[in-house]
Amino acid sequence: MPNEGSYEAALRRSDQIQADIAAGKTEPYVMLTGDRPTGRLHLGHYFGTIKERVRLQDAGVRTNIIIADYQVITDRDTTEHIRDNVYNMVMDYLACGIDPDKTMIFTHSAVPAENQLMLPFLSLVSEAELQRNPTVKAEMEASGHSLTGLLLTYPVHQACDILFCKGNIVPVGRDQLPHIEVTAKISRRFNERYGRVFPEVSGLLTSTPLIPGLDGRKMSKSYGNAISISMTAEETARLIKKSRTDSDRHITFDPEGRPGVSALLTTAGICTGRDPEEIAAEIGDGGSGQLKKYVTQAVNDYFAPIRERRHRFEADLGYVQDVLHDGNRRANEIAESTLQEVREAMGMVY
Amino acid sequence: MPNEGSYEAALRRSDQIQADIAAGKTEPYVMLTGDRPTGRLHLGHYFGTIKERVRLQDAGVRTNIIIADYQVITDRDTTEHIRDNVYNMVMDYLACGIDPDKTMIFTHSAVPAENQLMLPFLSLVSEAELQRNPTVKAEMEASGHSLTGLLLTYPVHQACDILFCKGNIVPVGRDQLPHIEVTAKISRRFNERYGRVFPEVSGLLTSTPLIPGLDGRKMSKSYGNAISISMTAEETARLIKKSRTDSDRHITFDPEGRPGVSALLTTAGICTGRDPEEIAAEIGDGGSGQLKKYVTQAVNDYFAPIRERRHRFEADLGYVQDVLHDGNRRANEIAESTLQEVREAMGMVY
Repeated sequence: MPNEGSYEAALRRSDQIQADIAAGKTEPYVMLTGDRPTGRLHLGHYFGTIKERVRLQDAGVRTNIIIADYQVITDRDTTEHIRDNVYNMVMDYLACGIDPDKTMIFTHSAVPAENQLMLPFLSLVSEAELQRNPTVKAEMEASGHSLTGLLLTYPVHQACDILFCKGNIVPVGRDQLPHIEVTAKISRRFNERYGRVFPEVSGLLTSTPLIPGLDGRKMSKSYGNAISISMTAEETARLIKKSRTDSDRHITFDPEGRPGVSALLTTAGICTGRDPEEIAAEIGDGGSGQLKKYVTQAVNDYFAPIRERRHRFEADLGYVQDVLHDGNRRANEIAESTLQEVREAMGMVY
Repeated sequence: MPNEGSYEAALRRSDQIQADIAAGKTEPYVMLTGDRPTGRLHLGHYFGTIKERVRLQDAGVRTNIIIADYQVITDRDTTEHIRDNVYNMVMDYLACGIDPDKTMIFTHSAVPAENQLMLPFLSLVSEAELQRNPTVKAEMEASGHSLTGLLLTYPVHQACDILFCKGNIVPVGRDQLPHIEVTAKISRRFNERYGRVFPEVSGLLTSTPLIPGLDGRKMSKSYGNAISISMTAEETARLIKKSRTDSDRHITFDPEGRPGVSALLTTAGICTGRDPEEIAAEIGDGGSGQLKKYVTQAVNDYFAPIRERRHRFEADLGYVQDVLHDGNRRANEIAESTLQEVREAMGMVY
């Protein structure tokens, strides 16, 4: 976590960018964001980031999404199901409203010229700076895996992801600000040492509501508490039905004291645009049975058009592959052009 | 320094490979070696490695030479003169007998698909293993520069350099064996985890005589004690003339007690193929003046044909560029093919 002062500065900068975008001043901004293809996207991803990406894309911000397939192996020893996960991720994106004509979707492993930036960028950070990154430490501890060279250098790959396309805004939560700080540092140091090639990079701090898993814990596929975008209405109903609430029939919104009930209320609230307290009051003594019916309806109504679109993409893998191939082709063009600028700045043109 | 047992094993393996090559069994071997383009090559490089590369090339071993331009910034903040250094390095190679029809000469920064291997390879080593490498530590201390991320991960780039072209022999001194061990480990781990793509890698331990600088210290441009291959006969004479000997007119070979005189004798010995002690006895009371004349003659005679060839390449930069472009083109073809195999083994083909 950065200190309070630098957080305040990052927040001010982020607010300024949001104001620019709201005013239609999108021209100066290039956004880069992405996901690890480790499973299906769920409601946490949708309301936490995907919806915001669609908003920025539709507001006219140049939007780039990296499917970070190499990040799968930062803390695990297998790439099992990766192909399937990548295709499903593209389907999720498209179904949620990511428009491949406006947004470049590409896979990390498909862009060698982007990855080459690792070499000059690693020369711009010290081993001590890599060791100091708190997010890397936290991720390593959470994974229970020993710290790989790939996880240790993770902020440097991220700098490659962001800077190869001259990205200058990156949607982040507060805990990810240190990563963005490494990218910003690499950009500044490169420009100072070799001449200006890269932009100034800012985090776009998102104030999206945190949607908990059905048990009130962090939403995660591995906890079985996550509703995937790709679930059917029936699967959604079943998962909500078996979620744990409590024995008090009277429904109240109390995230601390009643995590299960409150998670359902939050989920219903976010899908209907209503206040969870208001929903709780409406259900009153209807008990968790009635609450679960309400939540199921709310989720399924919200996602019905998204899921309908998704079915069309599931039936047309050729189109999904075309989207990815086109994104990869464009990403390679951009990466090769940036790498050439880097070589010229460094005098490595022979 | 690896422990004695593993050194003995590496030596046995190396002797076996040398025996195979001597017997004309070169087909199983692909050699990768290279240099940092930080200045002109000198006699230490020539007798230490270049001559051996020419021998292996001419014996029929597939030979690959990387001009490791990104290694220049492992421990310094500038790429000044790099273009000039790279061209001169190619001229030195060609003049010394490296044949571009037999040997692929390429620059590290020109081969993105090679560099992409950094990502999967970094996932196969732990941070602790990177920290443990004694050569990295020694190089860092020698440089007086803080440990960059690039120097910390240096054994992993080296693995990329060696493995992208399926190199399986790497000429090394004993102190570099730990690097080769990292490459061998990465190769084994990749093959175990994803299926066999990479060869088993061995160090080819060279028993070439160590040629000291003119003052008896390690030969290094920065000490001013190095005769460059590209020097003229007159420059060579001048440098030898001003080298420090001692006040004893009687010439004897005593590397400990008389480092200056003995360095001259060693240099003369290696250029003439004679025993330094025999040269010393022959000069006897002739003093350092006569010794210096003898050494100058020996060096200039040995390098006359090499220098003559070099003049022709100096006058034809277009040809030097063609050699490099052709090497880079071939390296890219090989790297792209290997990267594709890696993607397939990892299931990252979409």
